[in-house]
Amino acid sequence: MDVSQIELVSRYADILQVGARNMQNYTLLRELGQSRTPILLKRGISATIEEWLLSAEYILAGGNPDVMLCERGIRTFEGYTRNTMDISAIPVVQQLSHLPVVADPSHGTGLRDTVAPMARAALAAGADALIIEVHPDPDHALSDGAQSIFLSQFDRLMAELRNIAPAIGRSICLDRVASRSWAAPPARSTETAH
Amino acid sequence: MDVSQIELVSRYADILQVGARNMQNYTLLRELGQSRTPILLKRGISATIEEWLLSAEYILAGGNPDVMLCERGIRTFEGYTRNTMDISAIPVVQQLSHLPVVADPSHGTGLRDTVAPMARAALAAGADALIIEVHPDPDHALSDGAQSIFLSQFDRLMAELRNIAPAIGRSICLDRVASRSWAAPPARSTETAH
Amino acid sequence: MDVSQIELVSRYADILQVGARNMQNYTLLRELGQSRTPILLKRGISATIEEWLLSAEYILAGGNPDVMLCERGIRTFEGYTRNTMDISAIPVVQQLSHLPVVADPSHGTGLRDTVAPMARAALAAGADALIIEVHPDPDHALSDGAQSIFLSQFDRLMAELRNIAPAIGRSICLDRVASRSWAAPPARSTETAH
Amino acid sequence: MDVSQIELVSRYADILQVGARNMQNYTLLRELGQSRTPILLKRGISATIEEWLLSAEYILAGGNPDVMLCERGIRTFEGYTRNTMDISAIPVVQQLSHLPVVADPSHGTGLRDTVAPMARAALAAGADALIIEVHPDPDHALSDGAQSIFLSQFDRLMAELRNIAPAIGRSICLDRVASRSWAAPPARSTETAH
Repeated sequence: MDVSQIELVSRYADILQVGARNMQNYTLLRELGQSRTPILLKRGISATIEEWLLSAEYILAGGNPDVMLCERGIRTFEGYTRNTMDISAIPVVQQLSHLPVVADPSHGTGLRDTVAPMARAALAAGADALIIEVHPDPDHALSDGAQSIFLSQFDRLMAELRNIAPAIGRSICLDRVASRSWAAPPARSTETAH
Repeated sequence: MDVSQIELVSRYADILQVGARNMQNYTLLRELGQSRTPILLKRGISATIEEWLLSAEYILAGGNPDVMLCERGIRTFEGYTRNTMDISAIPVVQQLSHLPVVADPSHGTGLRDTVAPMARAALAAGADALIIEVHPDPDHALSDGAQSIFLSQFDRLMAELRNIAPAIGRSICLDRVASRSWAAPPARSTETAH
Repeated sequence: MDVSQIELVSRYADILQVGARNMQNYTLLRELGQSRTPILLKRGISATIEEWLLSAEYILAGGNPDVMLCERGIRTFEGYTRNTMDISAIPVVQQLSHLPVVADPSHGTGLRDTVAPMARAALAAGADALIIEVHPDPDHALSDGAQSIFLSQFDRLMAELRNIAPAIGRSICLDRVASRSWAAPPARSTETAH
Repeated sequence: MDVSQIELVSRYADILQVGARNMQNYTLLRELGQSRTPILLKRGISATIEEWLLSAEYILAGGNPDVMLCERGIRTFEGYTRNTMDISAIPVVQQLSHLPVVADPSHGTGLRDTVAPMARAALAAGADALIIEVHPDPDHALSDGAQSIFLSQFDRLMAELRNIAPAIGRSICLDRVASRSWAAPPARSTETAH
């Protein structure tokens, strides 16, 4: 997303996502501080937790209080997964900040069969929400098919998440607004743990 | 552990642990292949998953089939936690190998208050067992106090783990043998998910 | 630098620098492809060499052929230096691309006393130009003082560089234009190896 | 090398090398402290400079003063080169320690055509010695052929090094003892900068 697109996108989207590559695009962050639309701030692939929180400050300082932090994997030497999802960032951020933490196991691993275990792990570690890429026919998805799960995998995962949540005093709420706002594949669903 | 110590330690210990710094000590690995004691092979702090599995092969090739792989954190740029625990290694190893995967959130994060969330995450991701450092008075522990949890934290964690396990079709079994074999602090308990 | 600032800055500056955090700001890169001002494209702190070259393609594809690639250190686990300067990227890029490679040992290490050795190393490895931060009173510099070298260090370094260059069939040319264009400290000099 | 091999190897070798994987094999380091043979201590692929110096202390504390530190590349996210050679470690170690620093551009990059530029860079940064793998027919070398340079490349490199050394007040001395002690390919030559 670009500074010039904020107004247009805000008219239609419920949440504005700052991608990992833009986490330190300070011009954009400052502009988003003027917005009243909630922001999902993805962690840069080599951002420390401190830098991530400081990027959030740029938005908060502008007067927009609705910032969600999204862990989506960092770059390490391990090449089997596309990134190494830093699950420990979830409890660490929750100790350091009042902002909700969202986990993105689809981008975090880049591997379809690793999405469900990592979604469960993120919830068990305390994540406040999950972004999961689902697709009825992921092998023909226009983008990110390799990390999109089948509908059947999504159903089984949701059942598992509903059972894990109470173990840590949470419950699951499926946010249908987010999935409606994506007409083109891959459809994204945002699971929110309350 | 040293090659010369294998025989002595095997007489008293139920499991021989190969520490992260010895993961590629091939002389030691080959010697352990001759042993009939189960081996816990910790992942080196900068070992790829492939290198870790190949190190296990040195032991297996010698005729010792009882190898457990232990994820205990890898070295990245993030310095808030002592290491970055690679939770995604758990499902990846389980896809690539028949060997059980153990998670060590105490060494994996080095931070007492992050141990419980990471233990829950590891179990939810499918870990077959957990190593957790517990201490009645961790601030006076002879070693690793900063990553040892209080008994009260351990109790609460066990209750959470017992609730998470069924969500993924597992159950929890506390292995008291392991905790008995450690007279000196920090006492370690090995939780095994069946 | 922001898209909206390109025109204004181009009126006064000889070179437009894309900072490490903007290396994958594709909107900016595409806009710079329309410019006729030479671009210095810094490598992102966790960018692979391939990603860096692909970012340059965004500018080149727009019709601006004057792109210089600047190695300024990558993020690793080593914390003594601010970044780890990847000197091997210099010969690798020269094998893969026709674009000139500039080295920035000031940002690459963040340590004043390491700037001169790394400047010599970069030249010896084949760097086409160097960016070196020099300041008459670096401890009172408005920014980046810790990595700015004293004038006396700069004099000695220049003498060394003039001796190293012929060893690899190059010669040194001090580009005074660049240093003139910086009124405020830290003054930067661009050394060009021809 | 193994503890049990120290005595035998010391009878024939001028220098005992501790490989990167053994940098924190404390049993071995302590035993080498009892030796009177010079030790080449390679940096572990994910060892910090501090950990590397502390490993040297294990040998020095035992009474063996002849320790050389060898930079041979660290593990990062960059996969084009086998490792990322941390050239800045050379001046940093020289500021922190009195021990000589050796550079190994062959293992440091793993790429034949990158060996010469990195050897020049290491010397220009102040390295006290270089280890370079040379082979008359590297494509048929029994090991490490891909990083072994041709004799003609070695000749040209030596000429370049002889010209760079005086620029920083050093001179080159080819240590023929080391090359004599390797009967089997790849022959190694140790270049020492005095």
